[in-house]
Amino acid sequence: MYAYFRGELISSSRDNAIVDVGGVAYRLLISNSTYRQLPSSGDQVKLLAHLHVKEDLMQLYGFIEEEERQLFLLLLSISGVGPKLALAILSGLPVEEIQEAIMANKPETLFGISGVGKKTAARIILELRDRILKLQQTRPGKTAGAGSVASLSEDALQALMTLGFSRASAQQAVTRALLSAENPGVEDIVREALQNIRNH
Amino acid sequence: MYAYFRGELISSSRDNAIVDVGGVAYRLLISNSTYRQLPSSGDQVKLLAHLHVKEDLMQLYGFIEEEERQLFLLLLSISGVGPKLALAILSGLPVEEIQEAIMANKPETLFGISGVGKKTAARIILELRDRILKLQQTRPGKTAGAGSVASLSEDALQALMTLGFSRASAQQAVTRALLSAENPGVEDIVREALQNIRNH
Amino acid sequence: MYAYFRGELISSSRDNAIVDVGGVAYRLLISNSTYRQLPSSGDQVKLLAHLHVKEDLMQLYGFIEEEERQLFLLLLSISGVGPKLALAILSGLPVEEIQEAIMANKPETLFGISGVGKKTAARIILELRDRILKLQQTRPGKTAGAGSVASLSEDALQALMTLGFSRASAQQAVTRALLSAENPGVEDIVREALQNIRNH
Amino acid sequence: MYAYFRGELISSSRDNAIVDVGGVAYRLLISNSTYRQLPSSGDQVKLLAHLHVKEDLMQLYGFIEEEERQLFLLLLSISGVGPKLALAILSGLPVEEIQEAIMANKPETLFGISGVGKKTAARIILELRDRILKLQQTRPGKTAGAGSVASLSEDALQALMTLGFSRASAQQAVTRALLSAENPGVEDIVREALQNIRNH
Repeated sequence: MYAYFRGELISSSRDNAIVDVGGVAYRLLISNSTYRQLPSSGDQVKLLAHLHVKEDLMQLYGFIEEEERQLFLLLLSISGVGPKLALAILSGLPVEEIQEAIMANKPETLFGISGVGKKTAARIILELRDRILKLQQTRPGKTAGAGSVASLSEDALQALMTLGFSRASAQQAVTRALLSAENPGVEDIVREALQNIRNH
Repeated sequence: MYAYFRGELISSSRDNAIVDVGGVAYRLLISNSTYRQLPSSGDQVKLLAHLHVKEDLMQLYGFIEEEERQLFLLLLSISGVGPKLALAILSGLPVEEIQEAIMANKPETLFGISGVGKKTAARIILELRDRILKLQQTRPGKTAGAGSVASLSEDALQALMTLGFSRASAQQAVTRALLSAENPGVEDIVREALQNIRNH
Repeated sequence: MYAYFRGELISSSRDNAIVDVGGVAYRLLISNSTYRQLPSSGDQVKLLAHLHVKEDLMQLYGFIEEEERQLFLLLLSISGVGPKLALAILSGLPVEEIQEAIMANKPETLFGISGVGKKTAARIILELRDRILKLQQTRPGKTAGAGSVASLSEDALQALMTLGFSRASAQQAVTRALLSAENPGVEDIVREALQNIRNH
Repeated sequence: MYAYFRGELISSSRDNAIVDVGGVAYRLLISNSTYRQLPSSGDQVKLLAHLHVKEDLMQLYGFIEEEERQLFLLLLSISGVGPKLALAILSGLPVEEIQEAIMANKPETLFGISGVGKKTAARIILELRDRILKLQQTRPGKTAGAGSVASLSEDALQALMTLGFSRASAQQAVTRALLSAENPGVEDIVREALQNIRNH
C-alpha cells in the first residue's frame, strides 16, 4: 500500500525511525544498516516502506535502499521467517553479503545471525537462490563483485550460448550447476552445465 | 474508502504505479491498459483507486478510467475471481471488448486470457450480463458501437415501448431475449421479446 | 479513528460522496438527509466520519450533522443492525422523527422503512429509548418540539424535583414511566413516576 | 504505525480529543491526565499516538507525554489489560504514582482504580516491576523523587560497584532485593543484595 514516506526525520534509534509527513508522524521499524545511513534528526529523509498487516497489528518497516526492501520481502516469503527475523537478518549482515551467502550456498554465514537456526538458514538458501540469481542478472549496471556468483553465472551462460545452446536451456543448466557445486569457478559451472544438458 | 490518489507519478511498471501525494507515496497495482495510459514519471496523475482488505493484507488497485474500475469491482463480485485475476482479465483485453464478450455471450473471448478457465468465463457471463446491460443503458452519451449489443437492446426497447409496452416489462423481455438468442439483430430481439411478453 | 474529512466535494450521489483532502480522495457512504444538505461539487465540505472495519473491508460513512452520526452509532450498537441498515433508517426519516418514534415507543413508524422488520423496530426502541432520552436531556439549548417526549420528561423531572425528590431518583422514575405509558402527558408521567418512587 | 499527530486541536472532552491535520481530523481516546494538559480548542497540539488494531476496529489512543504512552504500552502487554482498562488506570493516578506503586510493590494503590481488581493489580506489579525499574534507571536526568525506589536502587547499585561487584551482577542482586523487601532503604537493599550475591 505504501511505497515510501518523505518528510522530516524526527528521531531514530537502532530499531526505529519517526518521519513527520505534513503533521502525521509515522514510526517505521528499521535495520542497523538503514539506521547507519539515516541523516541527522531534523533533516529530510525518504524511507522506502512495507506495511505489515495482521489481524491485530499494522506495522511499518522502513528501508533506505530498495535492494534491502526487496531482500526483506523475499525473506518474508520464506515460511517461518516473519518481519522481525527478516529485520534481524538484515541487521546482522550487509545486503550484498547475505545475497552472496545465499547464491554461494553458505548457510553457515546466515546461522551466525541471532535467531537464524540451521534449518531456517538452509530453507532460505533453498527457496531464494534461484530468485536472487535472477534478480542479480536483471539488475542493470549492477555488476556484482568480480568474483561474485552473479557475474560467474552470466559468464558461464554466455559461454554455453556461444557453444550453441539456447538461453533457456543454458540458464537451467547453470542454475543446477550452481546448486550442486561448492564455490564453482566459470569452468566448473560450464563443465557441470554441459554435464547437466547431456543428462537431460 | 479511497476514491482516488492525485499526485506526482514517481514510477510505473507493467503491474504497478507509485504516486506521491504530499510526501506519502502509495503503490497501486494496475492493468496493462492503465499502464499504457499513464503519463511520464514526474508528471501529475490521478489514479482512481480500490482498497482491497484482507486479514493480512491491505492492497491498493489503480485505474485511469472509471469504467475499468467499475468492471474490476463487478469481476470481484464473481466467486472465484480475486483482484489478481480481475486485473489479469483487464490486462488481457480492452474494457469494451470484455463488456462485448459478456453481453454477446462469448465465453471463448474470455478464456483466451491466462488464468481464466471455461468455468470462470461462463460464470462471469452468467452473473454479469444483466448488470453490464443495465450499466450500458444508463451510461449517458456512451452509445456503444453501432452493431453493439447495448445499442441493439436500446433500439429493441424503444420499438417495444412504441408498441405500447411499459419500459419495465419491455426491459425484462429484452434482457430475456438477449440471454437466449445467439448474436440477435434488433428484429430478433423484438420478436423474441414479444414472445416473452405473451408467455408471461 | 477519523472524526471528519474537510476538503473539496468532488462528486456526490444519493448514497456516497467523494471528498478530496490534499490529493487523497475519500469515498464516504451517506444517507439521503446528508445528501440533501451537501453543497455543490467543487465547494468545500466537512463530512463527519465513521470508519467501519471488518476483516475484509474498511468503509467510511459520512454525516453532515453530529446528531445523525450519533444516532448512526447508536443504531450500530443494536444486534442485527449493520451500517447499511442504519444508513437506510437514516435515509428513511429525518433524525428528529426517528428519535421521536423511539422515545414515544412507536415501532410502526420505524418498520415503515425498507429493511426494518417488526422485530428490529421493537429491539431498536427497547435498547435505545433510555439512551436517547438521556442524550436529549443533556443537549444544551436543543429543546425538542413543544409536545415532544424530551421536553415532557424534562417538565416531569422539574415537577418531581420541586416535590423534593433528588434529580437521580426523579430521573429514574421518569424513565420508567415513559417506558410503561403510551403517549403520556406530563401529569401522567408525574403520576406514574410518583407511583414508581413509592414502589421502590 | 503512527508516532504522533500534530495539528489543530478541534475539540476535546474527558475521554477523547480531535486533531485536524491538513483537513483529516483524527479522534484519539485520551486519559484524564492528558486531557488536563491539552491546550484550548483552536490551538496547535502534538498528541503522541498508539493505533490499536482489532479484526473489527482501528482505534487511536493519544498522549501528551511519552512516559504515559510507554506506561500505556507496558500495561497493554499484561494479559487481561486492554486499552480501555489501561486508559482507566492512567486516568486514575498520575504516571509517577502508578510507577511508584508498581516498584514499591503496593497493589492496593492500583486496585483503588475502577476496573482494577486485586488479581489484575498483582499481575501488573509482578510483570512490570523489573521493566519499570530498568526504564527508570535508563532515563537520563530523570531522577525520581529523593525517597523514590529508582534512586534508591541506583544508590545501592553504586555502593555494590564500589565494593567491587560488576554492574551486571550488582543489578541482578538489587532487583532481587527490591522484589523481596518491603519499602527497603539503601542499606537494606545493599545488605539484601550482598546476601543474594553470596548465595548465587
